[in-house]
Amino acid sequence: MPQPKIWIYDTTLRDGAQREGIALSLEDKLRIAHKLDEMGIPLIEGGWPGANPKDVQFFWKLKENPLTQAEVVAFCSTCRPSVIAAEDRMLQGVLAAGTRWVTIFGKSWDLHVTEGLQTTQAENLRMIKDTIEYLRSQGRKVIYDAEHWFDGYKNNPEYARETLKTAKEAGAEWLVLCDTNGGTLPHEISQIVQEVVENVGEKNLGIHTHNDSATAVANAIAAVREGVQMVQGTINGYGERCGNANLCSVIPNLQLKMGYSCIEESNLQKLTSMSRAIAEIVNLAPDDHEAFVGRSAFAHKGGIHVSAVERNPMTYEHIQPEAIGNERRIVISDQSGLSNVLAKANSYGMDLNKQDPSTRKILERLKELENQGYQFEAAEASFQLLMQTALGQRQELFKLKGFQVHCELIQEGEKPYSNSVATIKVAVKGQDMLEVAEGNGPVSALDKALRKALVKFYPEIAGFNLTDYKVRILDGGAGTAAKTRVLVESSNGKEPWTTVGVSTNILEASYRAVVEGIEYGLLLQSSVKTLT
Amino acid sequence: MPQPKIWIYDTTLRDGAQREGIALSLEDKLRIAHKLDEMGIPLIEGGWPGANPKDVQFFWKLKENPLTQAEVVAFCSTCRPSVIAAEDRMLQGVLAAGTRWVTIFGKSWDLHVTEGLQTTQAENLRMIKDTIEYLRSQGRKVIYDAEHWFDGYKNNPEYARETLKTAKEAGAEWLVLCDTNGGTLPHEISQIVQEVVENVGEKNLGIHTHNDSATAVANAIAAVREGVQMVQGTINGYGERCGNANLCSVIPNLQLKMGYSCIEESNLQKLTSMSRAIAEIVNLAPDDHEAFVGRSAFAHKGGIHVSAVERNPMTYEHIQPEAIGNERRIVISDQSGLSNVLAKANSYGMDLNKQDPSTRKILERLKELENQGYQFEAAEASFQLLMQTALGQRQELFKLKGFQVHCELIQEGEKPYSNSVATIKVAVKGQDMLEVAEGNGPVSALDKALRKALVKFYPEIAGFNLTDYKVRILDGGAGTAAKTRVLVESSNGKEPWTTVGVSTNILEASYRAVVEGIEYGLLLQSSVKTLT
Repeated sequence: MPQPKIWIYDTTLRDGAQREGIALSLEDKLRIAHKLDEMGIPLIEGGWPGANPKDVQFFWKLKENPLTQAEVVAFCSTCRPSVIAAEDRMLQGVLAAGTRWVTIFGKSWDLHVTEGLQTTQAENLRMIKDTIEYLRSQGRKVIYDAEHWFDGYKNNPEYARETLKTAKEAGAEWLVLCDTNGGTLPHEISQIVQEVVENVGEKNLGIHTHNDSATAVANAIAAVREGVQMVQGTINGYGERCGNANLCSVIPNLQLKMGYSCIEESNLQKLTSMSRAIAEIVNLAPDDHEAFVGRSAFAHKGGIHVSAVERNPMTYEHIQPEAIGNERRIVISDQSGLSNVLAKANSYGMDLNKQDPSTRKILERLKELENQGYQFEAAEASFQLLMQTALGQRQELFKLKGFQVHCELIQEGEKPYSNSVATIKVAVKGQDMLEVAEGNGPVSALDKALRKALVKFYPEIAGFNLTDYKVRILDGGAGTAAKTRVLVESSNGKEPWTTVGVSTNILEASYRAVVEGIEYGLLLQSSVKTLT
Repeated sequence: MPQPKIWIYDTTLRDGAQREGIALSLEDKLRIAHKLDEMGIPLIEGGWPGANPKDVQFFWKLKENPLTQAEVVAFCSTCRPSVIAAEDRMLQGVLAAGTRWVTIFGKSWDLHVTEGLQTTQAENLRMIKDTIEYLRSQGRKVIYDAEHWFDGYKNNPEYARETLKTAKEAGAEWLVLCDTNGGTLPHEISQIVQEVVENVGEKNLGIHTHNDSATAVANAIAAVREGVQMVQGTINGYGERCGNANLCSVIPNLQLKMGYSCIEESNLQKLTSMSRAIAEIVNLAPDDHEAFVGRSAFAHKGGIHVSAVERNPMTYEHIQPEAIGNERRIVISDQSGLSNVLAKANSYGMDLNKQDPSTRKILERLKELENQGYQFEAAEASFQLLMQTALGQRQELFKLKGFQVHCELIQEGEKPYSNSVATIKVAVKGQDMLEVAEGNGPVSALDKALRKALVKFYPEIAGFNLTDYKVRILDGGAGTAAKTRVLVESSNGKEPWTTVGVSTNILEASYRAVVEGIEYGLLLQSSVKTLT
């Protein structure tokens, strides 16, 4: 028997972009649309071309490099009060986008009709009917988003039902019940959707939920259990206020646990990488604790968990991380027991056992550094170097003698002149190297000078890049005089690694992280063999 | 009729501390316990004294400055296989904590008995019974956490039920059903809890859920609807992997929407500030998008929302933000329409209207700076200065001529010598000031030199402090040569404000944010009147 199909409707580009902190360029939007298309998401809401001129460009640009399988949908409100649909400027905008599908939102809640639109209930019904019929006459298929459906239904069920029936009779293909304010709880969703199904039939109903009560995903699931066949949501739950239903949770819940079909199994395995790629495009740090796709979603920290999960993953994991392209991780931290250190060492191919005094030595050094403000959870490359040090296996690549960094800024006229120069002295393989370099700022100048001093001895360095640089103040209370932790991500073009440095001086912290980044990159190059 | 009571059981200090990235000191734990006590949380799990020596100290220290109303609870597993409870080292640890209440977790899932503990089903029942009876004989009240209850019940309901009955007969006061792996969905919770209520009775049942399926809060609510009277969770949902049920969502959902009583109404109004205070203590940035208590939970960004919410808050808000101590915010961003700018200006007491050409000027300048990488959502002080500039009201406090920063580090022996010196030249009130200062690093040296140059003219500056300093790289791909955005939080001891600076040079970005911080502080001091 085939699994019942649930249509996934992504609104990352429209509702998701409303999240505080997100500002998408045209290029960002195109990249996201293609990512979603690759995942097999069938419906992608691309924007509101009537309200936002940038969105019209998006639809046009997309035609130059069209999607392979997804339908891209343009979004718009109904026509305005006292304006006929054929003459509404916004609707002309949505037609100009040239999509086959259009989503129209209309008012379900009498309060919004009178307070928001400042019109009559009858006029609102006219607007819904006129808009949908007009778009149908222009050859469009219409999805009707019943805005504030649940609040409207609680306050005036008769009127709310009337709006929905009007939309259906006018020819909408889908009726989507929206919990716009996100205040509805799952048991209320179940009850109200059940009543809608009894009244309107369950065919082509959709659900659109927000996370203001921390139940957006549960609300979507509750609606599906009552017969709804379309779920609207966003990648990583991005959206205004507390966000929308997170499709990265909705899809695996429906597909892996409830027997529905949303996307192909092979696409489901791309879920984690898609989630992170889109976080990168919207320029937000991925949420490590996000359900299913977070970096910590299958991370084990407590000693008991780690030894049990090593024996049988099912004991502490609700699904197989591979099914959604995520992976199990053993976390190194203050609470780490010996079994964590051992598991970690094994994953690096190092041969340690509980009896080995080195294991205790690593643990002690770890706790000592963590007390200083180091943190290795995000800097596994530095942790690996730490293990080598404790085992007496670390090879010193060079010895720092000292560095000087000089920055100046001269303000004359509008644009200031600025300049950063670093000199560094290191001893490499018995030779003293003194080098100087300029950079955009003090850290890049120092990084360049160090590379210049080392590249003659370690030519592989030329292939390394710094790909990310993060600064965190450890004791906020002390402001710029506080301890600084710097995380540096480096890459050799094939894989990235992260190293950490801590100091009250941001330059010193940066220097330490940069040095470990170079050291680890050379280790990788010379093969993991040298580690054991 | 009094509202039915739900007992809130907080495990931030134990399960919450398992979150990757959290490492609590003894002092942190004491501060959190007192915060929870002030909120009227009745049960606080303090730690696992048998497993973690630091936790024993916590219970002892707490006696020096006891809680006012909450019961603090010590946590432990049952005795080990083949060990009698009276001789189990871990249980001696939990008794040493000296609490009236003890929570004991035991195995419900046969797989964990055989695979995890590597013992027999009968021995597991003996361990549960022996442990609870022994603790009762020592005068303790016992809460029994049925670990992996839902997975266990799905796999072997008879055995799972037997473990629960054993715990009840041995004298446990509460039986708590735990979804340890977080894989259970709300409808499964409802069904299984219903069956437990039929079998065991609904008196003194509890629920403990995790967020691996993004449904922890919905799961807790589902159990309460079936008769459960205790909810275990953590502040801000901290916890291993994807976290625990977030009490900052559970409590307002139960109390404001479902008619249960958890804490006093006046305490509920402290929810937002408690959530943020605890985020600060555990040294994590608060989640701006957290349901109910997040900074964005009642933020309005889209133009339509803003004008509607200004007319009637109920149209776009599911609860009154004041009920939980949060507040409505109008967000300034790229998508801002004129109505957002107007609302913001009003909130600062500035007199602007839509027809005013300055309003458009502010909007244009805003978009221009945001294109450069500025972001004002977190830097309202800088936005206010921007508005002043656009209105021609900004007073120049001084003129920068230039600065130089020199850092050196000399490595001789173990500990490096380092030194940072900044010189700055500014023109203040027609006078050229040249000053020099040392600091822990380049930014603090520059900050000190600037203050030194200005304090003669603006003595209030002596009362300002930098309280936080954050750095974000805007284009991660370019590493240390990328654009840097610096956020600086300053304070005059009464209120904090945040300013922003962007540049490819981290020092220049820092300088700009620091300068605006000083400028805004002086504005505040001279009263808000000067703004209008």
